[in-house]
Amino acid sequence: MATHTIQVRVYYEDTDAGGVVYYGGYLKFAERGRTELLRNLGFENSLLTSTEGMIFVVRRVVADYLKPGRLDDLLTVLTTVTKMGGTSLEMDQSVFCHNEVLCSMKVTLVCVGRESLRPVRLPEKVRGAFSEFMSQKAGGGR
Amino acid sequence: MATHTIQVRVYYEDTDAGGVVYYGGYLKFAERGRTELLRNLGFENSLLTSTEGMIFVVRRVVADYLKPGRLDDLLTVLTTVTKMGGTSLEMDQSVFCHNEVLCSMKVTLVCVGRESLRPVRLPEKVRGAFSEFMSQKAGGGR
Amino acid sequence: MATHTIQVRVYYEDTDAGGVVYYGGYLKFAERGRTELLRNLGFENSLLTSTEGMIFVVRRVVADYLKPGRLDDLLTVLTTVTKMGGTSLEMDQSVFCHNEVLCSMKVTLVCVGRESLRPVRLPEKVRGAFSEFMSQKAGGGR
Amino acid sequence: MATHTIQVRVYYEDTDAGGVVYYGGYLKFAERGRTELLRNLGFENSLLTSTEGMIFVVRRVVADYLKPGRLDDLLTVLTTVTKMGGTSLEMDQSVFCHNEVLCSMKVTLVCVGRESLRPVRLPEKVRGAFSEFMSQKAGGGR
Repeated sequence: MATHTIQVRVYYEDTDAGGVVYYGGYLKFAERGRTELLRNLGFENSLLTSTEGMIFVVRRVVADYLKPGRLDDLLTVLTTVTKMGGTSLEMDQSVFCHNEVLCSMKVTLVCVGRESLRPVRLPEKVRGAFSEFMSQKAGGGR
Repeated sequence: MATHTIQVRVYYEDTDAGGVVYYGGYLKFAERGRTELLRNLGFENSLLTSTEGMIFVVRRVVADYLKPGRLDDLLTVLTTVTKMGGTSLEMDQSVFCHNEVLCSMKVTLVCVGRESLRPVRLPEKVRGAFSEFMSQKAGGGR
Repeated sequence: MATHTIQVRVYYEDTDAGGVVYYGGYLKFAERGRTELLRNLGFENSLLTSTEGMIFVVRRVVADYLKPGRLDDLLTVLTTVTKMGGTSLEMDQSVFCHNEVLCSMKVTLVCVGRESLRPVRLPEKVRGAFSEFMSQKAGGGR
Repeated sequence: MATHTIQVRVYYEDTDAGGVVYYGGYLKFAERGRTELLRNLGFENSLLTSTEGMIFVVRRVVADYLKPGRLDDLLTVLTTVTKMGGTSLEMDQSVFCHNEVLCSMKVTLVCVGRESLRPVRLPEKVRGAFSEFMSQKAGGGR
């Protein structure tokens, strides 16, 4: 299955007084990964909003925290698209450090209207790009 | 089942360019709720670390995002403790605005050693306090 | 001079791996203080945007970090309005813990149009409310 | 004067309901720039803490906000070191987008003991590296 990859450095802003990455920070890293996958496919969130009147919103996250990340770690965020529905996308996202999974997430996104915030069908060109990505054998790269 | 309640105001810092509360923000609100429940039971995270050598870490979050929160909303975070194991706690946490659920979370916490970050048994006094809280019929208050 | 006061609790989200409050966090606390002062005067940011088409933006911050804040600290944010111009406001904001100043800030705000982001004159009712606040001898309260 | 450069992408996490980069976010970008400059000189914050028992803390920030940053912007953070004292460093940091300055900052850092949080002399090897950097004619690169 095609996988998209970005690298993320852990800065002070990402850590907490426990000495590790704050648990909410992994959702930021995952969102960066999804955003760069989207950009890789030729789309930008800001342009999708201004030209298509749509926003991707997160409907569900299941996050398993397996190992702590720490200051100065260079993390890898892997993203695969596991399912595309009429108005939704499902992704598996994992944050690695040195070949160990720190956090594993399943994320459900819904395409909604900018103003209504109600589900709308994924634009055809977005569907096409994700469909092609999902059919690739391997992938990666920023 | 006993429920703990705090109120949280939505500030600019919590919102994003979509005009709504950023999805990672609900994990902050939930953590504030858990922290205030703990404080209500007579414990502070910083003291548990310095005196018991332990930290609560999040092992798992399942978050369902149902409605968007917005700037200036006054939110209510409800927390119930659904299960206590030897080294873990399970909680249901919901973020409400005007009697509507914006985000519903199931959170699994593990008590770990400060340095080892490995699971350790919940201190007896902490167990006792959570046990008493869980046996209450109703609850709340900051 | 009239002073507005709010209290802010330090949570894990506000701290970093240095064990103290992250330096950017004080700007969040200050913004909460300004927002609550505004609310106290009868205005909400979201309503000012929707009804007056304006946003307050920060033009300048001078922040002196004097002592570290720590997890579980209960902080006090004091805000005084030192000057009101045609399109701008100047404020002194201090974050205290146990009568010691942790961070002292001078903040310049500008009233800008929502879309243009260019300076516009402060709405008369906002001017009037700040003018009255500035003429008070003492103040406070959320 | 030698200048260090990094690029920073603006994600949803960095923006607020005003549609622009949250004002506290520029302090995060600046800290990433300082961290990468330090790494470029051969040092990591986490290692300086564990081996030298020191932390860099920010003593003062003067930030001028000139233009708004927006979602998906690719920003450039420029850092120059303007002064090195016995226990302190002064830097000018600017955040650019398309050759326009969005935010210009003057930052004073102090080297403090990890536990005491009191000023300590900059380690000699750190002094040497910054001294060499400051004497370069031009610079840059991540």
